[in-house]
Amino acid sequence: MKNNAITSRDVDFAKWYTDVVRAAQLADYTSVKGCIAIEPNGYAIWEKIQSILDAKFKELGHVNMQLPLLIPENLFQQEKELIEGFAPELVWATEVGDKKLEERFAIRSTSETLFCDYYKKHITSYKDLPKLYNQWCNVFRYEKETRPFLRSREFLWQEGHTVHATAEDALEETYRMMEVYKWFNHEILAIPSVSGKKTEKEKFAGAEFTLTNEDLMYNGVCLQDGTSHYFGQKFSKAYDVKFTNKENQEEYAYYTTWGKSTRMLAALIMVHADDYGLVLPPRIAPKQVVIIPIGKGAEVQQLSQKYCDLLNQNGIVSYIDDSEKSPGFKFAEAEVNGIPVRIEVGERDLKNGKITFARRDTREKMEESIDIDIVSYTKTLLETIQKSMYDRALERQNKLTFEAHNLEDMEKILNTQPGFIHAMWCGDEACENRIKEIKGCKSRCITEEEAIDDHCVCCGKEAKHHVIWGIQY
Amino acid sequence: MKNNAITSRDVDFAKWYTDVVRAAQLADYTSVKGCIAIEPNGYAIWEKIQSILDAKFKELGHVNMQLPLLIPENLFQQEKELIEGFAPELVWATEVGDKKLEERFAIRSTSETLFCDYYKKHITSYKDLPKLYNQWCNVFRYEKETRPFLRSREFLWQEGHTVHATAEDALEETYRMMEVYKWFNHEILAIPSVSGKKTEKEKFAGAEFTLTNEDLMYNGVCLQDGTSHYFGQKFSKAYDVKFTNKENQEEYAYYTTWGKSTRMLAALIMVHADDYGLVLPPRIAPKQVVIIPIGKGAEVQQLSQKYCDLLNQNGIVSYIDDSEKSPGFKFAEAEVNGIPVRIEVGERDLKNGKITFARRDTREKMEESIDIDIVSYTKTLLETIQKSMYDRALERQNKLTFEAHNLEDMEKILNTQPGFIHAMWCGDEACENRIKEIKGCKSRCITEEEAIDDHCVCCGKEAKHHVIWGIQY
Repeated sequence: MKNNAITSRDVDFAKWYTDVVRAAQLADYTSVKGCIAIEPNGYAIWEKIQSILDAKFKELGHVNMQLPLLIPENLFQQEKELIEGFAPELVWATEVGDKKLEERFAIRSTSETLFCDYYKKHITSYKDLPKLYNQWCNVFRYEKETRPFLRSREFLWQEGHTVHATAEDALEETYRMMEVYKWFNHEILAIPSVSGKKTEKEKFAGAEFTLTNEDLMYNGVCLQDGTSHYFGQKFSKAYDVKFTNKENQEEYAYYTTWGKSTRMLAALIMVHADDYGLVLPPRIAPKQVVIIPIGKGAEVQQLSQKYCDLLNQNGIVSYIDDSEKSPGFKFAEAEVNGIPVRIEVGERDLKNGKITFARRDTREKMEESIDIDIVSYTKTLLETIQKSMYDRALERQNKLTFEAHNLEDMEKILNTQPGFIHAMWCGDEACENRIKEIKGCKSRCITEEEAIDDHCVCCGKEAKHHVIWGIQY
Repeated sequence: MKNNAITSRDVDFAKWYTDVVRAAQLADYTSVKGCIAIEPNGYAIWEKIQSILDAKFKELGHVNMQLPLLIPENLFQQEKELIEGFAPELVWATEVGDKKLEERFAIRSTSETLFCDYYKKHITSYKDLPKLYNQWCNVFRYEKETRPFLRSREFLWQEGHTVHATAEDALEETYRMMEVYKWFNHEILAIPSVSGKKTEKEKFAGAEFTLTNEDLMYNGVCLQDGTSHYFGQKFSKAYDVKFTNKENQEEYAYYTTWGKSTRMLAALIMVHADDYGLVLPPRIAPKQVVIIPIGKGAEVQQLSQKYCDLLNQNGIVSYIDDSEKSPGFKFAEAEVNGIPVRIEVGERDLKNGKITFARRDTREKMEESIDIDIVSYTKTLLETIQKSMYDRALERQNKLTFEAHNLEDMEKILNTQPGFIHAMWCGDEACENRIKEIKGCKSRCITEEEAIDDHCVCCGKEAKHHVIWGIQY
């Protein structure tokens, strides 16, 4: 039964997206324009994201800390490219009570300035390095057009800020963290993202270079989902972050930052959800199994409870929906919330020694014996779902991956069905600007894959880079 | 060896406090006046606090969500007492980029307004109730005098916001959460706090009543550490939070809020730390055991590693300090950081089949056989430390708990050695004001303990309440 609260994905993708967000109670609009309430269902996914990413960061030697929300104007201005990049979106605090503040404070949109200011005080020798710090926090950017999770004025994220004694170490960290993000998208979110370097035009304000993780949505639109920036000594010069190296000489430190945000929830929806609501990969689902007893008999209740206890004891997060609603309503609710596996324990089926499993991803139903090894069966089923969600996303991504050898190709693709468009580029920003005229198509990243041509897709001159292009959110 | 970076606690308590904060690298000042950097050592304690409290909240049926940081001025003004209570401390965002915003936004100092605004939209029937929501976030209050953790312009906290269909349910929640806070202080932080109702004068702006958890610091000064507020229908009337009750009549919802913050780190320090640095109760220590190998021999290394693995495998968080520093330096560092147990594995001792345990709390050393059951011995030792830290804190608190029967008693106590002062009160604010003239002494809470007099400590009229008084941070 199709969920009536949800517009069909193929009819109106944008409407479908916000319908899913609301129907699955992930987030809602608030009286604060452009800012959302992340509701318990959405926040539970974010908590699961946090716990897995945080454990991985710590495994790699990172520790968490917390710097202030407000950044004094004079501090921000020490790095010109950064403030220029963010200036129009910065919100300023100027008053306290009924008085004017002596200085304006920017509400943090990113924390490079404060981390550099901190490191400046706390680093003296190469022995203090590296510093591998991370911060989980809220940031604010005054976006004009907003959509829940995708682009919200306030969002939650983690921002890693690391300093190193050598360029090599900092470069290694920059690439390593991009690998972590890629691993997270592929293995946990079941999203087969691509990654590579941003072009000069698209890199982070003030960075030497930016690595990016790019996801492809169901409708062929691209989503930047995780970036890792290498700053070299640029910021440490602006903020005077120096240390004494092994040769006893003063040197500016090498700096990296990397971040991933609640935008991941947008990607999860736009890659996996369907007309019935959310579909969560088992590894990120806060609740993995719902057990629905059908009928009031003691046997139904006992078996449901037994399954639930066994699954939870074995690390599979399960719950029984024993509310007063009808079975049909419970099925639809579990579907809209994206619970990966549903187990139906019904009076009639039990008489035949059967229970029913339903996969959320394919909506397939399997009848099994009540004597099944419930833990091993469910574990295998969850892994199967995880894998096939990835495989289906990859298959779709492959279908929506194109090659363009000239501007006509590019136009044809973008006017028919956008996606990841592979095309060679001369390295000239003029060509990027020309391509952007076609439906706002931008370079997503420079890929290390083999060249597909010797000439630029736009000007026809010698090609320097193999670039993936696309329309972005 | 006393830590030279730390002023003696008995010489200058205020200086000692900030010295411990710095020496243990819990927090540092920043370029943002009144705002601190919570450094990795401090943040790790906060993470442990969060994980234990959050698990307890969830066990009791609460879920987390996230509301915006910025609150539109018109929304704030719907509840007059609240805005009056917070007005002088509110910081206002008024500009974006180089433009003025149409409306001012307060940076949240507490989120009652936004939660009520959210509930208004999401509650229609008694079937939707209760809503047991909690939020972990940062809040901002422009305090004039600040001190790390104790009173910072920005701090981290959790704020629970619950709505109920009946006054009984809401009252039960208000008391239940105060019990949770008390449990947390007593059982986890080893702080024997007292609790009770705030007087009308001291309650939260807009609440019907406030329950509070009050800790006593080493120097006899009191610290409010966790409050639980009952609002009845007051806020739901101001914000129009209505539902249809079982009798099919429209009714305003019953509302509670409760919060605990990074101020707990201040309490931990001022109750347990000493002239050697931080002392952490084992249940809240991010690292519970440090193993220090003395000497380079293979046996020393192997045994250290074996102990460390065994302890970690059995849920005792342990690490080996195998840095290049001298053993004496390592001892001092583990002490200043408050690691509950230190195990010294020394070449010379091993020849005699011995290893040494050191308790951080008493600084006692115990020589034990290398064949000891390391896991069970350490587990017992950690529990012994936890219990004796609580017992010592309670013993001190008892010593600093006094009775006053008239104003002269009160003055004498406050001029000699402040603490928790038990005294009867008529209920008249004039008497509270009169008592406040003595060194700023305030009512901490109304206790349910037996009366100790029939007359008010101040005016001598009939006593209504048994109150605990004290000087506060």
